[in-house]
Amino acid sequence: MTDQPAESPTSEWLSEVKFDSDGLIPAIAQDIQTKRVLMVAWMNREALLETINTQSAVYWSRSRNKLWRKGEESGHFQHIKEVSIDCDGDVVLLQLEQIGGIACHTGRESCFFRVFNQGQWQTIEPQLKDPDEIYSNQ
Amino acid sequence: MTDQPAESPTSEWLSEVKFDSDGLIPAIAQDIQTKRVLMVAWMNREALLETINTQSAVYWSRSRNKLWRKGEESGHFQHIKEVSIDCDGDVVLLQLEQIGGIACHTGRESCFFRVFNQGQWQTIEPQLKDPDEIYSNQ
Repeated sequence: MTDQPAESPTSEWLSEVKFDSDGLIPAIAQDIQTKRVLMVAWMNREALLETINTQSAVYWSRSRNKLWRKGEESGHFQHIKEVSIDCDGDVVLLQLEQIGGIACHTGRESCFFRVFNQGQWQTIEPQLKDPDEIYSNQ
Repeated sequence: MTDQPAESPTSEWLSEVKFDSDGLIPAIAQDIQTKRVLMVAWMNREALLETINTQSAVYWSRSRNKLWRKGEESGHFQHIKEVSIDCDGDVVLLQLEQIGGIACHTGRESCFFRVFNQGQWQTIEPQLKDPDEIYSNQ
């Protein structure tokens, strides 16, 4: 018996996550059905906790300096099916269902729509929706 | 006509790649057959150029502070099939063939072998090879 408070379960798994000097960790969003890599964004501790607790992707927007609940403006929520972490504990991988089939703010399924081809980045994927239409309810 | 030297083709596509303040960009390695995300590492300008020129993955080792020609010690080379970049130009995605079927230094196919389950990171993937055996030729 000890007077020390018991370590909460949350702190145990969270202590294995290595956030960088800015308190952030990169998170890869992968479509669980197509296995396509949709996007990469950043999470702080709060974003990761909320993602796991709500099963909906929450990132940290470095440009807006605030939590970014993916889908809150676009409707393109990401329903989390699985969260994994790499051997070093410094990258998170999300297997998810992409609502609306669009992850990218340009209106494409994936943010990785430019492929290196003959010395150029070639756009290989059409816009599925006009961004003005996606964000018209802002 | 101008006395300015013509911009080389290389600098055109490279100028669209946004390296961070340390001169690095994260690169995701994805198996082109299984679509599994194998690992994430970092590239500097030189590593990206060599990766594209040789069609074999070259990263920048932040711990060793030098170019890391993936496979040079383990034999687990990564043959590049496609290189893409995201909408912001700050993440690279590699579609590749993983020689030996092992990307992780722990001897597993993927570095993402720990899945969040009931408040813990649960190892879900066996070692395919003992790391001592992988790196025995060092």
